[in-house]
This record gives sequence, C-alpha cells and structure tokens, in this order.
Amino acid sequence: MSLRKAAVITAGSMGTALASVLADNDFRVILTTRTQEHADEINRDRQNRKYTGDFRLTENVGASVSMEEALSGADLVVFAPPSHAMREVARQAKPYLSPTAAVIHATKGFEPETMKRMTTVLAEELPQIDPGNLVVLSGPSHAEEVIQRCPTTVVVAAERLDAAEEAQDALINSYFRVYTNPDVTGVEVGGALKNIIALGAGLSDGLGFGDNAKAALLTRGLAEIARLGVAMGGHALTFSGLAGVGDLVVTCTSKHSRNWRAGYMLGQGKPLDEVLRTMGMVVEGVKTTKTTYTMSKQYGVSMPITDQLHEVLFAGKEPQLAVGHLMGRVRTHEIEEIADAFGEKWIL
Amino acid sequence: MSLRKAAVITAGSMGTALASVLADNDFRVILTTRTQEHADEINRDRQNRKYTGDFRLTENVGASVSMEEALSGADLVVFAPPSHAMREVARQAKPYLSPTAAVIHATKGFEPETMKRMTTVLAEELPQIDPGNLVVLSGPSHAEEVIQRCPTTVVVAAERLDAAEEAQDALINSYFRVYTNPDVTGVEVGGALKNIIALGAGLSDGLGFGDNAKAALLTRGLAEIARLGVAMGGHALTFSGLAGVGDLVVTCTSKHSRNWRAGYMLGQGKPLDEVLRTMGMVVEGVKTTKTTYTMSKQYGVSMPITDQLHEVLFAGKEPQLAVGHLMGRVRTHEIEEIADAFGEKWIL
Repeated sequence: MSLRKAAVITAGSMGTALASVLADNDFRVILTTRTQEHADEINRDRQNRKYTGDFRLTENVGASVSMEEALSGADLVVFAPPSHAMREVARQAKPYLSPTAAVIHATKGFEPETMKRMTTVLAEELPQIDPGNLVVLSGPSHAEEVIQRCPTTVVVAAERLDAAEEAQDALINSYFRVYTNPDVTGVEVGGALKNIIALGAGLSDGLGFGDNAKAALLTRGLAEIARLGVAMGGHALTFSGLAGVGDLVVTCTSKHSRNWRAGYMLGQGKPLDEVLRTMGMVVEGVKTTKTTYTMSKQYGVSMPITDQLHEVLFAGKEPQLAVGHLMGRVRTHEIEEIADAFGEKWIL
Repeated sequence: MSLRKAAVITAGSMGTALASVLADNDFRVILTTRTQEHADEINRDRQNRKYTGDFRLTENVGASVSMEEALSGADLVVFAPPSHAMREVARQAKPYLSPTAAVIHATKGFEPETMKRMTTVLAEELPQIDPGNLVVLSGPSHAEEVIQRCPTTVVVAAERLDAAEEAQDALINSYFRVYTNPDVTGVEVGGALKNIIALGAGLSDGLGFGDNAKAALLTRGLAEIARLGVAMGGHALTFSGLAGVGDLVVTCTSKHSRNWRAGYMLGQGKPLDEVLRTMGMVVEGVKTTKTTYTMSKQYGVSMPITDQLHEVLFAGKEPQLAVGHLMGRVRTHEIEEIADAFGEKWIL
C-alpha cells in the first residue's frame, strides 16, 4: 500500500501532534525543523523532547531541515509555526509547494506588524494556492492531549466546502473528530483572541481570585472576542462553538495552557521578561494583546479585558489594579441587547 | 441605626452565603432551619458546619426554626431551598410574608413532578406577591467562594425592572457584583440545565478523557441548553452571559461543584445510589436530568447529552459507552445555522 505524503511545518507542539494524527491516518509525514540537530533527534529517538516530551512518534513520522525534502510530492501540508513566523516559513515553502496540495494551518494569532489573519498571510505568500481552498484548523485541542490520542474535537474552516471536507477526511479518526465551518474569519479570530483571555484568567488565578471571578472574566472575554470577530466579518454563532467558547474554556482552565501559565506568573508578581524567559516557548497571547488592542481601536469595538491586559503587559500597571478594575466596572444591565429585546415586557 | 431585616429560607450553602452578603450590606438576617438543633448550632457557634464549614458568620446573622419569627417584618426574603422543596417552603412562608417584601430566589432546578420553573412555583404559592416582582438570582457563584468574599458576579432577573433593581441595590457590594437581566425564563433555564452538563463533565473526567473532551462536551452542552431555553421563551443571548456560559464553566471546572463530583464518581464506576449516599447533600443535576429529558421530548428539542446522561442515571448504561456515543456522533458541519448563513459564500 502506497501511503499519501504530508508535510508539517514546523515541529512545535501542535505540529508534532497533527503529524501524529496524520501518521495514524496512514500518511507518511515529514516534520520540518530549523536545525539539523532537531531533525536528527526526531529521526533517531522518535521523540521531540522539547515540545512533546517522551511521547514516541510512529515510524511514519520523520523530520527534515529541508523544505524541499518535506514538500516535494506532498499531497497535504500543515502550517503550524508561531504566528510571527508564518510569513517567513510560507516564503520558504513556496518554491516546493504543489499547486494541488491541500493546505491547512493551525496557528492561533495574527501577524504582529500587519495584524493580518493567518490565511491572509498564506494567500499573499502562496500564489499557487486558490485562497478559497486555504483551511484553518482550530478548537479545544491541547497538543499534549492530541498526541496521547485523548478524544478531541476541532473545526476546519475554508471558503470552499470541498477544501474543508478534504481536510476533514484527511484528519478525522476515532479520537480526533473534525467538523467543518464556513466562517474562516470567525474561526481565526476566536483562536487568536482566546489567548488574551487565557492570560487574564491566569492573572486572576495568580492573584488568588477564585473560580467565580475567573468564570466572570471568561464570560466577558467571550463577549469581547465575539464583538471584534463580528466587526471583522465573522459569524456570531462561531463564537458559541468549538473555536469560540470551546477553545476559550480549555485554554483558561487547563494546566496545559502556556498563556494561562504566563498570566499566572504575572499575577504572582513576576515581571514580563522573566515570565517569557521562564516559559522558553512562544506565548502567543502577549503579541496578540498588543495587536488586538490596536485593532479594537481601529474597529471602534469595546474590549475592556484586552485594554487592561495591555496596560499590565506594556505599561507596567499592577495586575491587582487591572483585575480589580474589571470586577468593579460600573454596569447595570447584563447585556444591553437583551434589555432592548425585552423593551416592552421589561416594565418600567 | 436601624437595620433592615431579611429572611433567608433555607440554611443550605447558597442560603448561608447570601445571608452573609446581606449581613455585610447592613441587613439583620434570619436563616431558617428545619430543626431546632441546627438553629441552635448557628446561633451558638456562628457557624453552619455542614454547609459552610468553619466560616464564622457575623453577629447580624441569626437562625430560627420558626417561619413566623424569620418573616415577620422582613423587607427582603431570599428563597434558596433545593428545587423539590420550594413549593413546601413557600406554603410555609405564605402566612407570614408581607405583600411588600422583596422576594428573590436562588434555586437552580425545576420542580420535579410538574417541571415548573421556580418563579412559577412561587407565583402559585405566594398570591400576595405580584409575579412581575419575583426575582431570580443566578450566575457563577459557588457558595464556598461567596462566603469567603471572593469577587463574584451574578445576575438578577425579574419581569419588572424596579424589582430587579431593588434586589441589585440590596445585594451589591465590593465583592458581590449584581447585574440585572429581564429574561427570567432564560436565567432560570440556564441555572437548572448547567447541572446536567456538570454531571456529564464529571463523568468525562472520571473516565479520564481529558480537557479537550470536556471542553467539547461543555460547548455542545451550552448549545443544547440554549436550544431548550429559547424553545421555552428565553433569549439566546442570556445563554452567552453569566447565567449561561459563566455558570456552566464554573460548575464544570471547579472542585467545589457537587454535580461535577457526582458525575466524577459515576465515571469511576460507582453506582448512583452509592454516589448520592456519599454526597450527603442534594445533587440537583440528577433530578434535573430526569425532568429535562421529558421536557426536551415535549418541546421537540434535540438534547443528546441529556439523553445519554438519562440512560446512564436511570437505565444502567455504561458511562464509557455514553461518552463514547457523544464523542462519536456523526456530524458534518459544526453548526448548521452558520453553514446556512454562509450559503452563498460557502462554495459547493
């Protein structure tokens, strides 16, 4: 039996987890690495220690520092670099990527300087691929659990249904359930912005505020994610789905979340540069807070949690003051739209 | 200074926590108990050991076995019994309740036999109170944290705005933030149904399924709560608020949740009667699953999680099979309404 070939760029936590899913689905997979040593380690030990610990990859997964080796003849390509590196790896991939390859990305964030979504960056750098065929994969999917084959559900979104369905067919199996969604914008915004709220949830936990406070923060966080997402063209219901509330919940409440851990350390009083040094991996939420803060002003959307985190991260505001400010905000009705909808029944 | 008087019926976890909030807001509060011994313990030790551990109540909180003593002259009455006891305690309260008293309830569940909401039960049993003035309090508010004065946000809903605002004024303080919402039905349905999903989340955790699976369950759980809630006349946005996603998150992810703990023990293979015996307190989600199962059939609303839990609780289905069934459900699009909305852009 001749296996289909897939390339996964790059060999971080999520990339390695998705390589393992594809290998379980009878793909021969090559993970790309930045250094020869990293590729050698994966090929020799069948482990990617820094990102997925002592998990052993199957024989169907190999690694290479060469984009050409990874991409030549690949039927399916997954991009999963940090958001700031997407444009660069897409440029490196361009010469070797077949115009008929299925292209999926699983990166949660915006391009820092341009504030562009990841499918926009891919569309700009990969002219041989029809933009309507670009697929984003998102949802509550900690890599640490995916690679252990824990039951996981995700969404794949593309403008073209057949592209989303091709990704669904390639990735779905008994432990990895894949649903399609046409709302590329909503899925990408949900995935990026939940990292901001995860930082905030970590901050609240680090300050010792408890589960009630964290649930309130998460509820308001979902509302502000949806506000920006809808302003950017996403569909409100996407934020009630796996790429919205699902991913938000798992990121804010799981011990696996890097963004939550970074927030927790900030809440305990550690300065940002020390937190980032300790983490050793990219904390997407920090960059996303900066980008989203600017975007919220451009779109004229109220994002109080993002505003407060921006002050904590980049203006030295005390975390205690920021969370206190969020808890103490003066409001009357919970959601003005509900009060409006009940106008006539809401007897004054 | 003459303090306003409040009565809290009955002295469970939430009742005791709300009594403490009211006492902090300069109410003189009487908690009602079922036995003289329980009232004596609270009055003597200033503790309600069974429900709120070693927390010490202030001098403003007393207890009495007499409804007459508790209710005579009370400006504000909070009902917080288990849902199955609401009608009985309302009947006992009726002769002593002033027609001008503010009436708030904080009970999360339906009446088991009639499937009625709690404000409906109160309206039937308390003819001296205008039904439009009946207030429901809900939201992410574990009693264990409220009583420790951890920051907490809740909603109060009533048909009449002035009744909701009176409850808001009485309860709001620096750690207890209270928002108004006109959607009585939505707030009551959200509060009741989240206990079913919490049982399911506990089941998933007890089976060792991980955070990704739990987030998926919670996402789908929110969707089925909203489906029934909207069919019953609630507003869709309420389920995105504190009484919907907020309460769902805190109940499914906090170690304080009784419903989650009961589900966890079931997931570990303990039979239902042993779980209920071990808990020692009412597990609202068990009764609510039975009631909601019937309601979903009456309203013609699809509720797959409720269906599976109903089989586990009342038909002996193996938890592993039930959660496996939920994970393995055949679906294509994530949310059909999104696909429909994108009909023209979703290129076939």
